[in-house]
Amino acid sequence: MDNTIDRLLESYGKSPVTAKIGRSPQPNKETVVKIIGLLQKLIFPGFFEQKKLSREFVRYYIGEILEEIKYNLEKQMKKAFLCAEENAAPEDVSDARVDAISRSFFEKLPIIRDYMETDVEAAFEGDPAAYSRDEVIYSYPGIYAIMVARIAHELYLLDVPLIPRIMTEHAHSVTGIDIHPGATIGKYFCIDHGTGIVIGETTIIGEHVKIYQGVTLGGLSTSGGQKLKGVRRHPTIEDNVTIYSGASILGGDTVIGEGSVIGGNAFVVTSVKPNTRVTIKNPELEYQPKN
Amino acid sequence: MDNTIDRLLESYGKSPVTAKIGRSPQPNKETVVKIIGLLQKLIFPGFFEQKKLSREFVRYYIGEILEEIKYNLEKQMKKAFLCAEENAAPEDVSDARVDAISRSFFEKLPIIRDYMETDVEAAFEGDPAAYSRDEVIYSYPGIYAIMVARIAHELYLLDVPLIPRIMTEHAHSVTGIDIHPGATIGKYFCIDHGTGIVIGETTIIGEHVKIYQGVTLGGLSTSGGQKLKGVRRHPTIEDNVTIYSGASILGGDTVIGEGSVIGGNAFVVTSVKPNTRVTIKNPELEYQPKN
Amino acid sequence: MDNTIDRLLESYGKSPVTAKIGRSPQPNKETVVKIIGLLQKLIFPGFFEQKKLSREFVRYYIGEILEEIKYNLEKQMKKAFLCAEENAAPEDVSDARVDAISRSFFEKLPIIRDYMETDVEAAFEGDPAAYSRDEVIYSYPGIYAIMVARIAHELYLLDVPLIPRIMTEHAHSVTGIDIHPGATIGKYFCIDHGTGIVIGETTIIGEHVKIYQGVTLGGLSTSGGQKLKGVRRHPTIEDNVTIYSGASILGGDTVIGEGSVIGGNAFVVTSVKPNTRVTIKNPELEYQPKN
Amino acid sequence: MDNTIDRLLESYGKSPVTAKIGRSPQPNKETVVKIIGLLQKLIFPGFFEQKKLSREFVRYYIGEILEEIKYNLEKQMKKAFLCAEENAAPEDVSDARVDAISRSFFEKLPIIRDYMETDVEAAFEGDPAAYSRDEVIYSYPGIYAIMVARIAHELYLLDVPLIPRIMTEHAHSVTGIDIHPGATIGKYFCIDHGTGIVIGETTIIGEHVKIYQGVTLGGLSTSGGQKLKGVRRHPTIEDNVTIYSGASILGGDTVIGEGSVIGGNAFVVTSVKPNTRVTIKNPELEYQPKN
Amino acid sequence: MDNTIDRLLESYGKSPVTAKIGRSPQPNKETVVKIIGLLQKLIFPGFFEQKKLSREFVRYYIGEILEEIKYNLEKQMKKAFLCAEENAAPEDVSDARVDAISRSFFEKLPIIRDYMETDVEAAFEGDPAAYSRDEVIYSYPGIYAIMVARIAHELYLLDVPLIPRIMTEHAHSVTGIDIHPGATIGKYFCIDHGTGIVIGETTIIGEHVKIYQGVTLGGLSTSGGQKLKGVRRHPTIEDNVTIYSGASILGGDTVIGEGSVIGGNAFVVTSVKPNTRVTIKNPELEYQPKN
Amino acid sequence: MDNTIDRLLESYGKSPVTAKIGRSPQPNKETVVKIIGLLQKLIFPGFFEQKKLSREFVRYYIGEILEEIKYNLEKQMKKAFLCAEENAAPEDVSDARVDAISRSFFEKLPIIRDYMETDVEAAFEGDPAAYSRDEVIYSYPGIYAIMVARIAHELYLLDVPLIPRIMTEHAHSVTGIDIHPGATIGKYFCIDHGTGIVIGETTIIGEHVKIYQGVTLGGLSTSGGQKLKGVRRHPTIEDNVTIYSGASILGGDTVIGEGSVIGGNAFVVTSVKPNTRVTIKNPELEYQPKN
Repeated sequence: MDNTIDRLLESYGKSPVTAKIGRSPQPNKETVVKIIGLLQKLIFPGFFEQKKLSREFVRYYIGEILEEIKYNLEKQMKKAFLCAEENAAPEDVSDARVDAISRSFFEKLPIIRDYMETDVEAAFEGDPAAYSRDEVIYSYPGIYAIMVARIAHELYLLDVPLIPRIMTEHAHSVTGIDIHPGATIGKYFCIDHGTGIVIGETTIIGEHVKIYQGVTLGGLSTSGGQKLKGVRRHPTIEDNVTIYSGASILGGDTVIGEGSVIGGNAFVVTSVKPNTRVTIKNPELEYQPKN
Repeated sequence: MDNTIDRLLESYGKSPVTAKIGRSPQPNKETVVKIIGLLQKLIFPGFFEQKKLSREFVRYYIGEILEEIKYNLEKQMKKAFLCAEENAAPEDVSDARVDAISRSFFEKLPIIRDYMETDVEAAFEGDPAAYSRDEVIYSYPGIYAIMVARIAHELYLLDVPLIPRIMTEHAHSVTGIDIHPGATIGKYFCIDHGTGIVIGETTIIGEHVKIYQGVTLGGLSTSGGQKLKGVRRHPTIEDNVTIYSGASILGGDTVIGEGSVIGGNAFVVTSVKPNTRVTIKNPELEYQPKN
Repeated sequence: MDNTIDRLLESYGKSPVTAKIGRSPQPNKETVVKIIGLLQKLIFPGFFEQKKLSREFVRYYIGEILEEIKYNLEKQMKKAFLCAEENAAPEDVSDARVDAISRSFFEKLPIIRDYMETDVEAAFEGDPAAYSRDEVIYSYPGIYAIMVARIAHELYLLDVPLIPRIMTEHAHSVTGIDIHPGATIGKYFCIDHGTGIVIGETTIIGEHVKIYQGVTLGGLSTSGGQKLKGVRRHPTIEDNVTIYSGASILGGDTVIGEGSVIGGNAFVVTSVKPNTRVTIKNPELEYQPKN
Repeated sequence: MDNTIDRLLESYGKSPVTAKIGRSPQPNKETVVKIIGLLQKLIFPGFFEQKKLSREFVRYYIGEILEEIKYNLEKQMKKAFLCAEENAAPEDVSDARVDAISRSFFEKLPIIRDYMETDVEAAFEGDPAAYSRDEVIYSYPGIYAIMVARIAHELYLLDVPLIPRIMTEHAHSVTGIDIHPGATIGKYFCIDHGTGIVIGETTIIGEHVKIYQGVTLGGLSTSGGQKLKGVRRHPTIEDNVTIYSGASILGGDTVIGEGSVIGGNAFVVTSVKPNTRVTIKNPELEYQPKN
Repeated sequence: MDNTIDRLLESYGKSPVTAKIGRSPQPNKETVVKIIGLLQKLIFPGFFEQKKLSREFVRYYIGEILEEIKYNLEKQMKKAFLCAEENAAPEDVSDARVDAISRSFFEKLPIIRDYMETDVEAAFEGDPAAYSRDEVIYSYPGIYAIMVARIAHELYLLDVPLIPRIMTEHAHSVTGIDIHPGATIGKYFCIDHGTGIVIGETTIIGEHVKIYQGVTLGGLSTSGGQKLKGVRRHPTIEDNVTIYSGASILGGDTVIGEGSVIGGNAFVVTSVKPNTRVTIKNPELEYQPKN
Repeated sequence: MDNTIDRLLESYGKSPVTAKIGRSPQPNKETVVKIIGLLQKLIFPGFFEQKKLSREFVRYYIGEILEEIKYNLEKQMKKAFLCAEENAAPEDVSDARVDAISRSFFEKLPIIRDYMETDVEAAFEGDPAAYSRDEVIYSYPGIYAIMVARIAHELYLLDVPLIPRIMTEHAHSVTGIDIHPGATIGKYFCIDHGTGIVIGETTIIGEHVKIYQGVTLGGLSTSGGQKLKGVRRHPTIEDNVTIYSGASILGGDTVIGEGSVIGGNAFVVTSVKPNTRVTIKNPELEYQPKN
């Protein structure tokens, strides 16, 4: 056993990139997931409580949850900054710095709520299988993924490192929907089923857009790798566009004009004019008797 | 901070649909998931226990688990009815009402077990990578998703609100397989790999059907939205049909005749005669030297 | 209620395959998942700790985790052998037998670490959205799925039953990436986004291979079922191949020559020469004004 | 095993007093203990929190804890009334009834706090081993036992069944100090060490009283049993009395006049005039060489 | 740090009695406590459940709990025998051996229940502060301590090592009542308050005995130490005896004759005839004005 | 409800001593208890593990536990210093300061182990009811209380505030034995039964001392209160003294000479020469027929 330990120690010495020894620890995933849960309670109050949320106490309820978010979020942000800023010392990430960020973030909460209300409306109105808005809020993975993306996007805009991605990867794991925190998404966004959806970092999505499972809004090629950082690599989807399952829309110059419909499995790498229906011309299907 | 709280309170007042204040609480997700786990112990006894299930105690084991299911399920059903029936008071959802439903549901358990036995057989026989039926029962996500769908379907038929969908969305999250509780599924149903599968509310599936990852059995268009509720919108798959990965079969009038095979990525929106092999005619692939 | 119990007991008697009564219990999933977590701490030390891993204690840290893995892994392997070997008695699965396996497995840990370092490098270099290698290690589902596959593969080569599959199915559930423990995978393997990927048991993958979400490396047909066990059924992917999203490469005789690129949604069932770019020739897209 | 079960069932049938079958369940001990913990957070805010309690949030903190107490306390009170009132049906214990009790109880909280402040002062001033008032609040078992007794006493005065006793028995278990909820206790009450103290139901204690470990304030004889219920059976201790360890003061007519001191192990069954020092006259000790 | 480790290792080598390295592990305290909780559910069914215990399920409830006790108790007994029997190997403690013990023990359960019913009756009838028998069962520490002693005594008679003492020490910690598992205790045994009571290994107690807090039924001197093992060292208390708080009754030849009453703080080392009232003759108390 | 909140806020403002708002939080009790548990694993290795502690891993086991203790203890010490030193800022309690203390403390661990070995020996040899030294280590409350006192005493000598007292109060709660961390205790210290024992801050106890339940080694009077801080207030017990149950020995000038025996319930406030047997001269007992 000592031999295995020696070889592992040697490996840690040789490859320090994959061995975080004597370096600042990462933000804690479980706590980040807990923060999402607390934000969900502010955004959809009463839906994720076991007991009836009474009107008499709702103000205290909000205050207490805000406090818990503030405490946890600031602690995790400190960890994130210390990880991301190589030579930072604990005193470089001041209380005041993270306090300012969390206050800016809190100002966005009512706005996130406004957006989410439109997303719930779009999901309910667009799905005959939805029995009530309550069901949509409580059990639709699309709503969860969009909520997490909207939260993470605000933190991304505030230049918080690591945490936004941990948030969206959690939603990715739970829903199969992979939305990068950098993506800009308009109101009334509707995701149906959702598994396999990928939405890249520089994507811009307008209002009243609906996408189905397996849709990719991606880059044309990533062979450029790290050299492409910061470059616009993902498409623009204008208002009132619907994209059916399995379609791929790729490239930073690709714009899907407003009101267009992209058919299932379509592979689109150039811009599409407004109000266009794009479908795969061929293939036809071949029907043969089974032998 | 007081300002944030005021703005959130204002938002709750303005948008009561997304703020469940003073209204009945939802069924509890964790408890619903626990109920699934208990049912799994009755359907596949001994497979999800840490210790050997002894013959001497098995009767007590069943009885105790049934009791625990009954207690939890009835409690959650009461919550679900109170949520779903807008003006219901607690006394409108009587003990007798939920007791009757749970008893009806329990009568289906041996039948669900019969069906699941055929599903296990189909999964084992159809997969050379399966080393034993035990492995199939214990670790195949397809088996889990089908089991949850069969359970949820019985509750759906008993008009239990919310809970069936919470169940199938849990299985969706765990397996990437999204089966609506309304779908009707015959014996010997086999799902391979499974991620990305979508099976819509009004789908009807015969016996000995096998489907692969990424298959959609969906609606043609949902632009009708809530107006389509209750209308047949999803396809019929007859006995002995195989559907390869990524294929989409859409529409309430679409019938895949028995014994047919649908090729990978095929996009089928019209009916297919029995014993037909459907493949994508084009595209051919283009082979170019990489530059 | 007694009636339901009687009918379930009758069903257990009738279908003993799906009722594990008086038989050896399965390995415990939660413990297997815990073992993965402990191995992750050895492979990427310090990344999954809440506190800074200090240089002074790292040797003890490794030793203690190894001990915990050894204890738990050997206990679960005993269960697995007793399940897999029908007539085995506890004494047939000796301490010495599982001790030997765990020692062989531990020898592979530094090698797994070497491989994972190349995978991290490939993921970071190939993704402009990656802000640091730390982020890749800590939050990329592709890295997690590959790590679990590399671990499970070593146990698979040591003929440990059940446990390798439980491991990869756990990763499948968390990431949507389904890699069979039998698959052989070279260095610098990169999975982007990942949801919906399927990699079959007899797949062989070279170095510097990159694959995207929804890619299938599968069998041509599984109608042979259990008769095909042990036969090579899945493709060979040579070095420096890139496979875009939704592509399927099927069949045990299919070889994708080195340096080739397979386009999105391509359906490849025959071998491809080195340095070839394979894309779907048709379909063209049809652009119609939306009515 | 069936035999054991049959005999137990028979025993349950024969002795229904000790077999609560088909009867209302008891209040939940764990929840009652949790309520004590929440009340402790209101009475000594910030002392039992992991993080600094910030001035900005303290109002919300109180509100949220009050809400949690209210919810849990009312739920447990309903159970308690249903247990205590033999033929009560759930509807007999209305929401309004328990709401009224919890509101009356909440009005006492600031008063309990006033009393506890004097108790802390007495404990600190009287104990040279106390390093700070913080230490007294945070770690002195006497303070905990008095706090629980003051809380339980208010509920006892509001005629809440079962719960007050569950509370004081919890404190008894934790501290070895057994104070019946019926006891009336004045300000500046100090318990030192505390283990083995017994204070009976009808005891009356004045202000500035100090008692040591092993002191009994009890009844003269309990051979009257249930016939004595409601009768004054325990002593009156006037202001500024000190009672040293192991002393017993018994009987409902016994009054220890103000300013008196009762010596260790004294056994007092008749009243004592004010400002009296009571010590054991004999025994003298006998000093013999050890053989 | 390495220095500290070396010195500890050296200390372990030097004093192996206090370093259990490479030796069989102890029975698990938490599991033993859990077993007590399960037995409590069989002895007082329904009192320690959150939900109403329904008549329909009670047989299954018993069966399932018995099974859980059997599994856990046998596992802990195996550990206990391996600890106690120095050179035993796992195979020396056969399944059959512990199965036989647990079956013998189960036969005593209805008898323990009969005894406990009399203890509850004695506690209720003897205490004017008791509001109901439910309260006595649910919250009296004396009842808990007696129940644990009766359980542990049966295991002690079956020569189970370690576990009986772990059980009574748990009750000692919770209640302050220290009853050795060897003590023989008759029906209608009543402990009031209880803290500080000590009842030694070879004590024999008749029926209708009542003792108060701080009573010791002990040995005369333990200077004989291990040489006295097995010798009768503790007193006999005949039927209908009452012993008031703080009294000590010591010695293996000491018999308190039936119907006697021992006064508070009395120190009794010789036998007492039936129907005798024993009180401390002196001391009188001295009443002086406080200066 | 708002009214209650206002009155509580007002109370917090008025009595800031009992309201820790905006002040440093206390050390965490749960963590301090966890530290005790970790130290127990180092002092009695293998006794508090579920699995056999193997010789191969014991060095790593020690190292890892030391690391966990160091991390937690230093974190709690920082909290303790910040609480105790009124105007301290976090930077005043440097890493180096707490690191130095924990290293000094660790040096004492092998010595504590040496002492504890003698305590175990004394407990085993002195108690005919002890079946093995294992049983003594694993289940005797006296051993636990002494161990905690020895640990806390070392931290007390290192001037660590708050934590030593939290430790001994935890042991007090669990065992009923209240030993102040300041007490100095020699080797071969034996506590039998223990409930109700009090040992004051400035007590000095020699070697081979044995005390029974209910013994007080206390101060003569605490009416001096805080003015007596630092003064010697508690007795000296020389080597080979035995003190029987319920005895009180009080006062800073009181010395019990070596080899003496103090009888049950004796009340000793002056020094006793060596080798003296001290018993209560009177009272004789009075034997009357019970009427």
